[in-house]
Amino acid sequence: MRLSKYFLPILKETPSDAAIVSHRLMIRAGMIRQQNSGIYYWLPLGFKILERIKSIVRKNLEQADCIELLMPCIQPADLWKESQRYDSYGKEMLRMIDRHDNSMLFGPTNEEAITDIFRKNIFSYKDIPKNFFHLQWKFRDEIRPRFGIMRGREFLMKDGYSFDLDEESARKSYKKMYITYLKIFKELGLSAIPVRADTGAIGGDLSHEFHIMADTGESQIYFDKKFNDYLAKDEYNFEELQSLYAAADEMHDEKKCNISSENLISKRGIEVGHIFYFGNKYTKIMNAKVLGKNGEQIYPECGSYGIGISRLVAAIIESSHDEKGIIWPSSVSPFTISLINLKPSDEASTKLADEVYERLLALNIEVLYDDKDDSIGAKFATHDLLGFPFQVIVGPKSAALNLVELKTRKTGLKEELSIESLFTNLVQNVY
Amino acid sequence: MRLSKYFLPILKETPSDAAIVSHRLMIRAGMIRQQNSGIYYWLPLGFKILERIKSIVRKNLEQADCIELLMPCIQPADLWKESQRYDSYGKEMLRMIDRHDNSMLFGPTNEEAITDIFRKNIFSYKDIPKNFFHLQWKFRDEIRPRFGIMRGREFLMKDGYSFDLDEESARKSYKKMYITYLKIFKELGLSAIPVRADTGAIGGDLSHEFHIMADTGESQIYFDKKFNDYLAKDEYNFEELQSLYAAADEMHDEKKCNISSENLISKRGIEVGHIFYFGNKYTKIMNAKVLGKNGEQIYPECGSYGIGISRLVAAIIESSHDEKGIIWPSSVSPFTISLINLKPSDEASTKLADEVYERLLALNIEVLYDDKDDSIGAKFATHDLLGFPFQVIVGPKSAALNLVELKTRKTGLKEELSIESLFTNLVQNVY
Repeated sequence: MRLSKYFLPILKETPSDAAIVSHRLMIRAGMIRQQNSGIYYWLPLGFKILERIKSIVRKNLEQADCIELLMPCIQPADLWKESQRYDSYGKEMLRMIDRHDNSMLFGPTNEEAITDIFRKNIFSYKDIPKNFFHLQWKFRDEIRPRFGIMRGREFLMKDGYSFDLDEESARKSYKKMYITYLKIFKELGLSAIPVRADTGAIGGDLSHEFHIMADTGESQIYFDKKFNDYLAKDEYNFEELQSLYAAADEMHDEKKCNISSENLISKRGIEVGHIFYFGNKYTKIMNAKVLGKNGEQIYPECGSYGIGISRLVAAIIESSHDEKGIIWPSSVSPFTISLINLKPSDEASTKLADEVYERLLALNIEVLYDDKDDSIGAKFATHDLLGFPFQVIVGPKSAALNLVELKTRKTGLKEELSIESLFTNLVQNVY
Repeated sequence: MRLSKYFLPILKETPSDAAIVSHRLMIRAGMIRQQNSGIYYWLPLGFKILERIKSIVRKNLEQADCIELLMPCIQPADLWKESQRYDSYGKEMLRMIDRHDNSMLFGPTNEEAITDIFRKNIFSYKDIPKNFFHLQWKFRDEIRPRFGIMRGREFLMKDGYSFDLDEESARKSYKKMYITYLKIFKELGLSAIPVRADTGAIGGDLSHEFHIMADTGESQIYFDKKFNDYLAKDEYNFEELQSLYAAADEMHDEKKCNISSENLISKRGIEVGHIFYFGNKYTKIMNAKVLGKNGEQIYPECGSYGIGISRLVAAIIESSHDEKGIIWPSSVSPFTISLINLKPSDEASTKLADEVYERLLALNIEVLYDDKDDSIGAKFATHDLLGFPFQVIVGPKSAALNLVELKTRKTGLKEELSIESLFTNLVQNVY
């Protein structure tokens, strides 16, 4: 993509109304703009990252035998009256009346809707277990939306729902999702700590939140140092991880925590995932049942599994940035390379930069080509702000020698390379 | 995907409340289920087709230099008051009040929102032309939702918006989108007739609707027979196509139509796309301006471009089906192949079918593997109903000879083949 043709409104100044670093950087890097309180426009760069995260989440869920479908944003109040959550959900639920005087709402979550699909279409024990998920915009009318998309009102969530025949297999499904979540966060370049959580409005007796450590996190997290070793492994073991102490502030109990102070880590955490096992709470109340092997009626045992997709964008930035800007993990970076032509008016520079651009495109390497007239200082600042893994810098001096500079954003290391070495180097790093 | 693990609730009976063939087939093929009036759940198969259509639309728009972003579902009423459409939009707009007593609405279209983005971020003639699009769920509170997703309330639309410096380049952008739309519909396996249209609530002086011919269409379309020849070409020419007579009923004027009756085709049409050129109507009223070369203030000239993504699913079925079921054009078919194991309890059949399945997966050919216990008649009926381009049929008799049957859904032609010939044949047909 040529920057001259793209839409990337970079801000040099720090926006005054942004309280946390991810919000500031997302605004400055032209990723989002506020529409109104807690509701954001996703500009092209921000949208591209959302899609990256979605595709990583999707791939891992499909590998775990989850099936994607899509439920609508607007739901009838009747469904929520059946589950007795319509009144209790309170003011966070965005409610409305349609032209025929029906009470409707913008879905804040989908336990009711998926149970409605289940009860209308699945009638036999032979057709479960099933594990469904969808990626859909949700609305929660937060009393005080803040921190940009971190605590917005309209947000993108992946929510999944498992249906099993009995408690034993439902707990297996839960464990599988717990492990899958850890894999997803790892692939996103994040280290997520699973902590025991309160089941709250969803109900049930087993629940974990997944937290990313960052100073701006809204919860205080206490966890055993050993997590760092266990999460570095290639394979995760639920029982092993479960045996370690980890709790968020509201569940933390100093008396129950028998970890020595030097082995107990206490940090701020951003919640990016939440999983629940709640048994047959919704299947029973909404009369979703299947016929068992011997003709008996069974209310399936269920869990629900959420990942805050839009919030993850901010969480990744909170956990990966420096004073110059964002440092994208390569798995989610919207572009792999910033190709910076320092002086587009210089014929040799532009010829060389064009050539590199074409070759990168031919290799299917995602590149943002800065072909704009701008000062050298502004260009460096912009691309450090954007934070793609590599910068390929072409200037009149090096172009005359048919050389380019390759800078790694994370380390700041630069090396001057011939075009051939550049491509050898990139192909090794990218694939 | 193994059918035994998928979620595909096939109905043998025709649903009594579905008035048109696409609605009946989408329900029967387990693609959608109604949540409530005009609002649908997209089950896995239906969701997969939506994604196929999205990716074809996306690819063609990107090739035409359009840039994707994403605007939220919920918009503030204030934006629509600025454009003076808040009151005039009437009861089709789903309105609500948030917890802080702000008037909000579920976006039925996005001219206001995109103009809001534009005015806050683009200030110079150097930064246009721009052509943005997004794929987002819309809500229009139809008084009488009907025909399944064909006239639903919550629906998926691709809407795009162009901003140009002057009328001449704006009309060029319009023509480019007109041609791009014809390419998109062709790639979707459809023949779409562009007809002059009324600009209605959007405003402006130039507008075309794109219609797919089908008996269940809601409009009567009159067009020159020559369209069939011109649309068969590899390249489209706007002026050439524009010179041909084409009008929907409300714009049709027998006096102005000087086509002989044998050259005038009159058929029912389903509107699947609509494009508008409306000049500076929104930029002016919302004060979105850029600075021109000589420091003058310019209100950009705009167009908007819509494709009904969810409606297209139904339109494709309306135009491509037979008495047995759907016949998917290969470009959008959710699976390329139905692999039908006629007798899973037969060891040789299952061994052969498993082998074919693994090889298809290895070739990245999308296959739905019917590994369920079911009668042979039911299996044939199911897969003709689903309508993927090819069926590979494995039964005990042929399996004993290491042969399979390859059936082409559209023609019904069957041939018995060795495994090697099957793959030679498939690879030729699929790639």
